[in-house]
Amino acid sequence: MNTVAFIGLGNMGGPMAVNLVKAGYTVKAFDLSQAALNHVVEQGAMQAPSACAAAAAADVVITMLPAGKHVRSLYLGDEQNKGIIDVVADGTLLIDCSTIDAESARFVAEQAKAKGLEFIDAPVSGGTAGAAAGTLTFICGGSDAAFEQAQGVLNVMGANIFHAGGPGAGQVAKICNNMLLSVLMVGTSESIQMGIDHGLDPKVLSEIMKVSSGGNWTLDKYNPCPDVMENVPSSNGYQGGFMVDLMVKDLGLSQEAALLSNSSTPMGALARSLYVNHARQGNGKRDFSSIFEQFNKKG
Amino acid sequence: MNTVAFIGLGNMGGPMAVNLVKAGYTVKAFDLSQAALNHVVEQGAMQAPSACAAAAAADVVITMLPAGKHVRSLYLGDEQNKGIIDVVADGTLLIDCSTIDAESARFVAEQAKAKGLEFIDAPVSGGTAGAAAGTLTFICGGSDAAFEQAQGVLNVMGANIFHAGGPGAGQVAKICNNMLLSVLMVGTSESIQMGIDHGLDPKVLSEIMKVSSGGNWTLDKYNPCPDVMENVPSSNGYQGGFMVDLMVKDLGLSQEAALLSNSSTPMGALARSLYVNHARQGNGKRDFSSIFEQFNKKG
Amino acid sequence: MNTVAFIGLGNMGGPMAVNLVKAGYTVKAFDLSQAALNHVVEQGAMQAPSACAAAAAADVVITMLPAGKHVRSLYLGDEQNKGIIDVVADGTLLIDCSTIDAESARFVAEQAKAKGLEFIDAPVSGGTAGAAAGTLTFICGGSDAAFEQAQGVLNVMGANIFHAGGPGAGQVAKICNNMLLSVLMVGTSESIQMGIDHGLDPKVLSEIMKVSSGGNWTLDKYNPCPDVMENVPSSNGYQGGFMVDLMVKDLGLSQEAALLSNSSTPMGALARSLYVNHARQGNGKRDFSSIFEQFNKKG
Amino acid sequence: MNTVAFIGLGNMGGPMAVNLVKAGYTVKAFDLSQAALNHVVEQGAMQAPSACAAAAAADVVITMLPAGKHVRSLYLGDEQNKGIIDVVADGTLLIDCSTIDAESARFVAEQAKAKGLEFIDAPVSGGTAGAAAGTLTFICGGSDAAFEQAQGVLNVMGANIFHAGGPGAGQVAKICNNMLLSVLMVGTSESIQMGIDHGLDPKVLSEIMKVSSGGNWTLDKYNPCPDVMENVPSSNGYQGGFMVDLMVKDLGLSQEAALLSNSSTPMGALARSLYVNHARQGNGKRDFSSIFEQFNKKG
Repeated sequence: MNTVAFIGLGNMGGPMAVNLVKAGYTVKAFDLSQAALNHVVEQGAMQAPSACAAAAAADVVITMLPAGKHVRSLYLGDEQNKGIIDVVADGTLLIDCSTIDAESARFVAEQAKAKGLEFIDAPVSGGTAGAAAGTLTFICGGSDAAFEQAQGVLNVMGANIFHAGGPGAGQVAKICNNMLLSVLMVGTSESIQMGIDHGLDPKVLSEIMKVSSGGNWTLDKYNPCPDVMENVPSSNGYQGGFMVDLMVKDLGLSQEAALLSNSSTPMGALARSLYVNHARQGNGKRDFSSIFEQFNKKG
Repeated sequence: MNTVAFIGLGNMGGPMAVNLVKAGYTVKAFDLSQAALNHVVEQGAMQAPSACAAAAAADVVITMLPAGKHVRSLYLGDEQNKGIIDVVADGTLLIDCSTIDAESARFVAEQAKAKGLEFIDAPVSGGTAGAAAGTLTFICGGSDAAFEQAQGVLNVMGANIFHAGGPGAGQVAKICNNMLLSVLMVGTSESIQMGIDHGLDPKVLSEIMKVSSGGNWTLDKYNPCPDVMENVPSSNGYQGGFMVDLMVKDLGLSQEAALLSNSSTPMGALARSLYVNHARQGNGKRDFSSIFEQFNKKG
Repeated sequence: MNTVAFIGLGNMGGPMAVNLVKAGYTVKAFDLSQAALNHVVEQGAMQAPSACAAAAAADVVITMLPAGKHVRSLYLGDEQNKGIIDVVADGTLLIDCSTIDAESARFVAEQAKAKGLEFIDAPVSGGTAGAAAGTLTFICGGSDAAFEQAQGVLNVMGANIFHAGGPGAGQVAKICNNMLLSVLMVGTSESIQMGIDHGLDPKVLSEIMKVSSGGNWTLDKYNPCPDVMENVPSSNGYQGGFMVDLMVKDLGLSQEAALLSNSSTPMGALARSLYVNHARQGNGKRDFSSIFEQFNKKG
Repeated sequence: MNTVAFIGLGNMGGPMAVNLVKAGYTVKAFDLSQAALNHVVEQGAMQAPSACAAAAAADVVITMLPAGKHVRSLYLGDEQNKGIIDVVADGTLLIDCSTIDAESARFVAEQAKAKGLEFIDAPVSGGTAGAAAGTLTFICGGSDAAFEQAQGVLNVMGANIFHAGGPGAGQVAKICNNMLLSVLMVGTSESIQMGIDHGLDPKVLSEIMKVSSGGNWTLDKYNPCPDVMENVPSSNGYQGGFMVDLMVKDLGLSQEAALLSNSSTPMGALARSLYVNHARQGNGKRDFSSIFEQFNKKG
C-alpha cells in the first residue's frame, strides 16, 4: 500500500496529501485547479494527468471533494467519462474523506462492491490546522477488513480514527455529531446570554456550568462569549475556526439524513434555521460561534 | 456558627440536616410534616415548635422549600405571621437552598439587607443520593463575606460550592445550567436516535460523539438510550434519577427568568414545550432522560 | 351610567375618552402626564385631581395602563394610597382595558368582588386608528351581568365586543389570539420567502394560499412581503402598524400564561424567541410584519 | 384533446379518471394494480396494456403517482424501459398531478422540453371527497400556453385551477401552502389548549379568534378541538380527513425544498418534528388535526 492517488487538493486535501508524502508514500495527485496541484507537487507529490490516471496506478485512492454529486460522478463516471471504479486495479482501496450525504456514500460503496472493491467513507474533522498537523479525526464507515487496511494512511493524516459501522456510517456519525455540536453551541450561547442579562459574569457562569450537568465541548474548548477564553474565535472577532457556511452545509446534510430515515430532530432543525438566518444576515464567513450575537445584540 | 435552624425536611432537606448533626452542629429542625420532623429528630436533631422559633435561636438558618412563594412568606412573614427576618438575632446568616425564581431570591435578599442581615440563595443539585452522601453541588448568590461565612455548613453538605455572584445569582446560574442540561438531553436523544434510524449502533455512536465536538455531560454520565451505559436510569426503565416533573419545574423557572430579562432562549423554550408534552403523556414521574422515547417510539 | 372616570390617556386611552365625550358621557379624566390630560380636557373632558377622585364620582371607571403592576396598585392601593376599590360608590362598574397578565386581572377582580364590585377585564385590539375611529375590538372577561352593563360604553368605543368568559378570560383570549397571530405572521413569512427562493412571484403565491388551506388573517389583511398588498406596513418600509416591541410584550404575557397553566406552546415560544432576537437587532419600533426580513435578508 | 391517458388509479386517481369518462373523454387507463384498473374500466375507461401504450395513443397524459422517483422513471424511462416522453406523439400534453419534490418536477419538465413536449406539474388538494365530486384544487407549474391547454381536463376534475408559475412552481406552491397549513394547525391547537387550561370554553375562544387577527383556515373549516365544530374529524375521533402520514410526507417535501433553496423555515421544521413524533406514537393513520392531542393529553 505504498502508492496513493490523492484527488482534491484544497485547503484540507492539500496538507493531507503533503503529510502522506512526508511519511514516505508515493502520492499521485490531481486537482482541477492547477495552482492547488502545483502546491503539493512542490512538496514532493507526482502530478497525474487526470483523476482516473492517478487512481489506475495506485494501491489506495483518497478523495476530498465538496459534495455528494462530485463523489458520485468521480467514482461512478457519467455519460462522457469512466469512473474510478471502472479503472482501478483489483484490490485497490477507496477512501472518500469528503463530508457528503449518507445516501451517496452508501450508493457509491454498493457500486464499488459490485466490482469487488472496498470503499470507505471517512469524513474528517479538525479543520485546516488539524490537516496540516496530521491530527485530524476520521469517522469511518465500511467493512472491518477495509477499515483495518486503511489504518496506515489514516494514521499519517489523523490522530483519532473511529469505525462507526458499515458503508455510510461514517457520514451518518459525523453529521449526528455536528448536528449535536450546533445544538450545544446555540444552547450554550442562549444560556450564557441569559446569565449576562441577569447581571452574571459570563466567565464565572461558564466555569460553573462547565463542571456541572451543563458541561459540554463548547464550554470546554470553544466558548462563544467574547473574552471568556483565550485563543478561541469569540475572543478574536469570530475570525477563523469553522465557518457559519460550513455549519449550514452540515446541518443541511443532517436534515437530509433526517428526511431519509423519517427521524424527528427538533433541536437540529431549529439550529439549522437559526444558522441560515445568521448566514443570510452576512455572517457566512465568520466562525460558527458567532451565533452568540443573535442573542446578544442590543437594538 | 454552631447552631443551625433547618426548615424543610423532605427528601433533600432531611438528609442534609442529618449530615449537619453528624458533623457536630446543633440542629433545630422544623417541618410542617411531623413524620419528616420525627425522622431527623431520631437522628439527633432538636425539634423546634415553629420555623421562627428555630430561627430565633440559631446562628445560621437553612431553608429547603418548594417554591418562591413559600420562601417569601417564611422569611418575610404575612398578615398573620412574622417572618424569619423579623425574629432572628443580629448577625444570623440566612441560607435558602430551595430552587426558586430569581426575582423572589433577590427580593428576600433585599428585605433581609434592609434589616442588616445577610441572605444567600444556594440552590443545590445532586439529588437525594448527593444529599445523603454530602456530595451536593451548591451554586450561591450573595456577598463575598456571606459566602465566606457559609463555607462551614455548606462544605458539610456538599462537595462543590460555587459563588455565582450577588443576590439571586445562585438561582440564575442554576437555571441557566439546568436549561442547558435539558437542551443537551434533547439534542443528544435526537442525534442518537437519528443514528439508530440509519442503522448505527448507539454505543459506537455515543463513544464517537463523547470524545468529539458533540461531547457533553449526558454522553459522559447519563446516556438517554437504553443499554448504552450501565447504572443509569435509561438502562433501568427510566426509574429514579431526576424526574420529568422537576425538569418541567426548572424549565418553567428558566422561562420566567427569560421573560424578566427579555432574553431569547429558543432551545430552552423548545425543550420546555417538549418536556411539558412528555409529562402530559403520563411520564412526569419518570427520569428526564425518558424524553428519548419521544424520538424513539414506533407507531 | 352617565359619568365615566377615565384613567390613562395615552395614544390609546386619549382618543377612547374623547369618543365617550362626543357620545354625551360626562368624562372625569386623569393621567400622570399633564399634557395628555390637557389634550382630552380640550375636547370636553373634565380634569380630575387624582385617579381616586375621578373614580369616586363616577358610575363607570375605565382604565388604560401599561402593565399588571400598575393595574394592581391603582385598583388595590398600596402602603401609601387607597385603591379605586376603596373609594368608589356601591354599584360602580370597573372596566380595565389594559393588556396585562391574566393572573393580575383575576386577582383584582377577586378583590373587587370581595367589596361587592364588578370588575371586567376588557383588553382591546385595533390600534390607535381604531381608538380614534371608535372601531376597537374588546375581548371581555367578567360576569354576564357586568358584561351586559358595560355594553353602553364599550359600543361607543368599539365595533366588536366579545365575552370570553369569567374574570381574566378577556386577557387570556387576547393573548391566545395574539400568540396565534405571531405564529401566522412567522409561518406566512417563511412560506412566502421559500416560494421566492424557488423563483415564485410572492403575489401569485399569496393569492393561491389565501384561498387555500394556508389561508389566514395575515394573507388577507397584512401581507408581510413588500409590494404584495397596498396600504400595509410591509409596503411602507414597515412603518406604522403594530410595533415589534408590543408583539414582544404580548408574547411575554402569553408565555407567562403558559407557565401558569403548565401549557405547552412550542410555536408561540419559538415566535417569542424570534421576535426578541428581531427586537434586539434594532427593529423594536418597526411594524411586527418586518419579521419577514429575518428570512429574506441576503448576506 | 379528446383522448386522455390516465396512469395511477388509486384513491385519488381513480375517481378523477372516472370524472373524465363521465365528461365524455376517451380515457385509456393503466395501473399496476389490476383491481384499481378494473374499477375504472367498469365505469367506462379503456384498459391499456401498459403506461406507455396508453400514453402513445393519447392527446393528454395525466399521471397520479406516489413520489418523485416514480414520476422520473415513468416519464424518462430507465435502463430497461422507454419513458413516456420517448413514445408520445408530438403535441401531447403531459400533466403530472402527483405531489412530489420540486426538483424532480423541474427535471422532468426540462427533459420533456428537450423533446419539444409541454409538461405541467399540477398537484392537487381536496382529498378523496374532492376527487369524487370533481371539486379538487389544482396548483399548476408550466408555460402559459400549456396551462391554457390544460384547462379543459382540469376543469372537469377540479373547481379551482391556479397557475403558480413556470415548471415546478405548482409543486413549490403546494408545499408552501401545506407547510403553512401545518403551522396553522399546530399554532391553533396550542392556542386553544392554553385557553382551555385557563378555563375558557374552546367554542367561545375559537369564535373570537376566528374573526380576529388569529383567524385562519383551521378555525374556519377544521377546528382541531373536539366538539367545537360538527362534521370535522376532531368531532369524529380524528377519523377520515387528511392523514398524519400524508402531512409528514408533505412536510418532508417542504424541508427538501428548503434545503435546495437554502431557506430558513423554523416553524415548518418544528411542525415536521412534532408530526413525526406524533406519527411514531401510533397516530399515522389518524387525521392531521389529531396533533391537538399532543397538547391536550393529561398524564
